[in-house]
Amino acid sequence: MTDQKPVVAILGGTGKEGPGLAQRWAYARYSIIIGSRQAEKAQATAAEINSLLKISSVRGMENAEAAKQADISVLTVVQSAHQEALLAVRDALQGKILVDATARVDFRDPRPPEPPSAARQAQTLLGDGVRVVAAFQNVPAHTLKMDLDKPIPCDVLVCSEDSLAAEEVIKLAEAGGMRAFYAGGLENALIVEGLTAILISINKHYGVKTASLGITGV
Amino acid sequence: MTDQKPVVAILGGTGKEGPGLAQRWAYARYSIIIGSRQAEKAQATAAEINSLLKISSVRGMENAEAAKQADISVLTVVQSAHQEALLAVRDALQGKILVDATARVDFRDPRPPEPPSAARQAQTLLGDGVRVVAAFQNVPAHTLKMDLDKPIPCDVLVCSEDSLAAEEVIKLAEAGGMRAFYAGGLENALIVEGLTAILISINKHYGVKTASLGITGV
Repeated sequence: MTDQKPVVAILGGTGKEGPGLAQRWAYARYSIIIGSRQAEKAQATAAEINSLLKISSVRGMENAEAAKQADISVLTVVQSAHQEALLAVRDALQGKILVDATARVDFRDPRPPEPPSAARQAQTLLGDGVRVVAAFQNVPAHTLKMDLDKPIPCDVLVCSEDSLAAEEVIKLAEAGGMRAFYAGGLENALIVEGLTAILISINKHYGVKTASLGITGV
Repeated sequence: MTDQKPVVAILGGTGKEGPGLAQRWAYARYSIIIGSRQAEKAQATAAEINSLLKISSVRGMENAEAAKQADISVLTVVQSAHQEALLAVRDALQGKILVDATARVDFRDPRPPEPPSAARQAQTLLGDGVRVVAAFQNVPAHTLKMDLDKPIPCDVLVCSEDSLAAEEVIKLAEAGGMRAFYAGGLENALIVEGLTAILISINKHYGVKTASLGITGV
């Protein structure tokens, strides 16, 4: 995995966020697997991305099989499917990196989520054998789908107790055109989830859809 | 207060953050009062700022008297003094704006603070007669003290249920060279406090002292 690009699965990859990330990494020549509860839905999303990028490398399959075949899995399910999705891939993820992109924030009533962070909950569910990293909670889906050859104006905060796993995810973010910063342990992912509430509040107040986070001074 | 600049008190203004804010607003020709538990300490800080800016308008006095004479009070005490400082100025603040800049984060162990937000706690202590706004929790003291005639590369997130009070504070931030954004109610200030933990974590990891927050896309 040091010289070669990791195989990346996007679990729950048929929603809004997942295809956006998948496109960016497929464009950067990563081997991408779309995972879903239903293999057919995953294959349909994979086919759309292949068609869009004029490639044929993106595959679709059930979440557990996707996690099994991948080096790094990125979880992009909706909040209500978080626990079920994790239980379905627990065995397949042992020894590997799981990136949790969950932000438990309601668009209609954006406020701070309850502790512990979704990523901490994932670590508890998956056990110590899985290298859990929290990232990509704040990247708007439509921003991901903008010009794939241009950097994204939204920085990614990467939280994990496993600093080598965090480094892998920072590399992955950068390959997708995002700047990424290590921002502490999984507890801090609660704040990053909450930032989604801040960005939604700003969007509503100013009548925009594009409020994003940037880190300066590093 | 509509056409004239408000008189601004910095309560607990002898610490690190307070003098930095005071300097910026004094430079922008606001009438500034430094408040402290001890009038002598407040006067000493006021004299330093006057000397630095070659002015004589900054005054120093006890917190309660400072709050009484001001239109807007900004609380910049350390976390442990939060409750006591608020109780001392409760009567003086009735009908006026209190800006809470408290971020309950430990530099040595930066993690998310417990709900409710410091500003929500302030609102509960002060009662509904005070217009509580949360802001300035993330602006590093040394950044405030950089070139006073230049904008600060750190955006301010302003939280309040009182949108007119929030607008006043956004104006104040802008007068001090900061971009400021309305970011929802006092509950959301918990996330803004937590951002301080994120910025400290980034500073530690990258060996810098200048990590700051920026909002793009608005």
